[in-house]
Amino acid sequence: MFPQHLIARKRDGHALTREEIGVFVRGATDGSWADYQLSAMLMAIVWRGMTPAETAWYTEAMMHSGVVADLAGIRRPKADKHSTGGVGDKISLHLAPMIAACGVVVPMISGRGLGHTGGTLDKLESIPGFSVNLSLGAYRAQLDEIGLALIGQTADLAPADKKLYALRDVTATVESIPLICGSILSKKLAEGIDVLVLDVKFGRGAFMKDKADARRLAEALVAVATALGKPTRAVLTAMDEPLGHTVGNALEVAESIACLRGGGPADVMEVTFALGEQMLLLAGVAATKEDARGQLEASVASGAALEKFRALVAAQGGDARVVDEPARLPQAKYTVVVAAPRAGFVSTVDAMGVALAALRLGAGRAKASDAVDHAVGVSGLVKVGERVEAGAPLGVVHANDAAARAEAAAMVAGAIGIGDTREAAARLVDEIVG
Amino acid sequence: MFPQHLIARKRDGHALTREEIGVFVRGATDGSWADYQLSAMLMAIVWRGMTPAETAWYTEAMMHSGVVADLAGIRRPKADKHSTGGVGDKISLHLAPMIAACGVVVPMISGRGLGHTGGTLDKLESIPGFSVNLSLGAYRAQLDEIGLALIGQTADLAPADKKLYALRDVTATVESIPLICGSILSKKLAEGIDVLVLDVKFGRGAFMKDKADARRLAEALVAVATALGKPTRAVLTAMDEPLGHTVGNALEVAESIACLRGGGPADVMEVTFALGEQMLLLAGVAATKEDARGQLEASVASGAALEKFRALVAAQGGDARVVDEPARLPQAKYTVVVAAPRAGFVSTVDAMGVALAALRLGAGRAKASDAVDHAVGVSGLVKVGERVEAGAPLGVVHANDAAARAEAAAMVAGAIGIGDTREAAARLVDEIVG
Repeated sequence: MFPQHLIARKRDGHALTREEIGVFVRGATDGSWADYQLSAMLMAIVWRGMTPAETAWYTEAMMHSGVVADLAGIRRPKADKHSTGGVGDKISLHLAPMIAACGVVVPMISGRGLGHTGGTLDKLESIPGFSVNLSLGAYRAQLDEIGLALIGQTADLAPADKKLYALRDVTATVESIPLICGSILSKKLAEGIDVLVLDVKFGRGAFMKDKADARRLAEALVAVATALGKPTRAVLTAMDEPLGHTVGNALEVAESIACLRGGGPADVMEVTFALGEQMLLLAGVAATKEDARGQLEASVASGAALEKFRALVAAQGGDARVVDEPARLPQAKYTVVVAAPRAGFVSTVDAMGVALAALRLGAGRAKASDAVDHAVGVSGLVKVGERVEAGAPLGVVHANDAAARAEAAAMVAGAIGIGDTREAAARLVDEIVG
Repeated sequence: MFPQHLIARKRDGHALTREEIGVFVRGATDGSWADYQLSAMLMAIVWRGMTPAETAWYTEAMMHSGVVADLAGIRRPKADKHSTGGVGDKISLHLAPMIAACGVVVPMISGRGLGHTGGTLDKLESIPGFSVNLSLGAYRAQLDEIGLALIGQTADLAPADKKLYALRDVTATVESIPLICGSILSKKLAEGIDVLVLDVKFGRGAFMKDKADARRLAEALVAVATALGKPTRAVLTAMDEPLGHTVGNALEVAESIACLRGGGPADVMEVTFALGEQMLLLAGVAATKEDARGQLEASVASGAALEKFRALVAAQGGDARVVDEPARLPQAKYTVVVAAPRAGFVSTVDAMGVALAALRLGAGRAKASDAVDHAVGVSGLVKVGERVEAGAPLGVVHANDAAARAEAAAMVAGAIGIGDTREAAARLVDEIVG
């Protein structure tokens, strides 16, 4: 079976068989397909799409291209959440300990990827000493002992996805629902989970700008994961303004700790509860949404979730004192307050504008080899609908570079709109799919 | 301008600018694009197509990726013909000398390509000593002296096409009218011609099975070449049964020599005159089709065309005695007559079936590195509409291998259908485009 014959079948709009998809995915790791054949097939898939069955076979083949963590020895239910990515999205940091405090194991393996504002791994690494590089053995042991682990993707996890993702990034073949499904789910299903909850974001600050596209992606993700035997739901959430008041790695860790202490921003907690409820329901430890909500609130009120976070930090080598003393997190050299140019109501806080300001400060990566500055970012961001007076702070820029500071402050100012009337806030949690 | 941004523009259905197409084509030769980016772009072009302007820019950029022969010093008009490829298509061998005998220079550079039955270069190389490897200097000198040269593609001619064609072959991106246009015309326009006539074939034995597809290709080829300043016409011809009575390299050379002696098969001569008429008209040496036809017939009747062929063979190092003694061409060890299983009228001679028999005998190439056996093939093939008696010969298989001989004979027998009534012969020369 020559690669070009399979490429031609997809090019001509045919559905591939399970065996043919297996040949393609194996070709990504065993060298039997050249990179130029892989990329031609990827473009043909962007063009012609994949049926639900093809997408499930593709996902399964990528999952089995490497090791699949075997957590059968851990008897408690195991649930994970995954977000398609948003600005200020620190939810994993406090949701995972909340879920673990409710008796559900959270085996979370994250890719690092690109991103304007750093990912979950970058945020965790802003805690001095915190290591995300655990072997699968240490990961399993930690899950058994404290019920959660947040680690980086190991080389032996879904290597076909690693290969194909790198190619997609440089061949304009990222934008394809079946390819996105396969990439997200092959890694998540290799973690050893029982159930999965997805936060699929739409809006200005999301990969999917359009809600209909996001819903299509959510439906495909749920269908594929369910077909592969993992009960899954997706929560569609708006991503027009950043989540919470902070954007930037250490700043977001501090905000997550505030969430665990009961002082989380309303929008962050709304998404946190929506995702957490579905995790507890799917995991079978809550009977109703209200029951799940009660357990989650109790995990915070009792301090159990904060203790889980402390245990996580300690288990992965981090300085657990940051939990009580956030000032131990990296601090930027400069801060500058962005002041409101006029009085009024905040009408927009453009997530992408704030993200680009954070990127300019060094909080994220423009290319994979870039180093991340954990200290920098934006804090104290106003929220849409808030009343501000002229000269009042709209946010605080944290910078390690004087030139970046000025530029980023201008970018943040430009991202915030002020109007004369209070706009109705858009619905944040839009729909549950699955 | 990152390659992936240009790929994304084509993927999303936008027309590329002249500059963008230049970046892509340069990327094929200067290493600034990786092979996997080239192939992703090629698949996006197969998907989205190219506008006429894009196709012309693409062709021009590929032509200028290498040297363009400068034949301005040769004052006579210069015309070439190109065929999209058919079974038994030996027409270049005798048409080029006929045109040269009419006072029009024929600068013909051919790619070798794949093919079931050998290409023009393989046919010429069946003449002992004949060399198709001339430098561009020697090519120019020979054109000036005798008015024709038939040589192989040099490494410095359209190298971008060479690179992209090799990639297309293994990434299922051959089937695209703009890509085919660019590939054919970039090489032809680099030869130094003034005008061009294309033989675009359709039918069972052609690359384009469907006449409408062939017409679309013909129209695109004519539009692009004309836009690039080279008056061009295309002749649509049927390719359901092989041209003439022979398939195979040396056997076809002998049949072409017969054409030059006035004894050519009717179908071969019909296509030969149709193409030759357009060449003389475009070159401006004939005023009407009838005038052109008269000149071509005279070139044969006078022996002038045969003398041009003799001069060509001698100029390129071949044994010119083959012109008078065809037995000096390579002869196969075995011949076997394929006999008619019943009496009746020949209803089909399937060109593809005969071609595969020739390939089995070794007349062509399944892969680029295959050697060609010049002696083997099929001669004495019957034509559709002919009356045959039971046991009468349908063709003669020439083989150098006893096993191949038997298989090929069965394949030829299987390719020929015999019915009870005489079928009307399909029109061979269907339409002139341009």
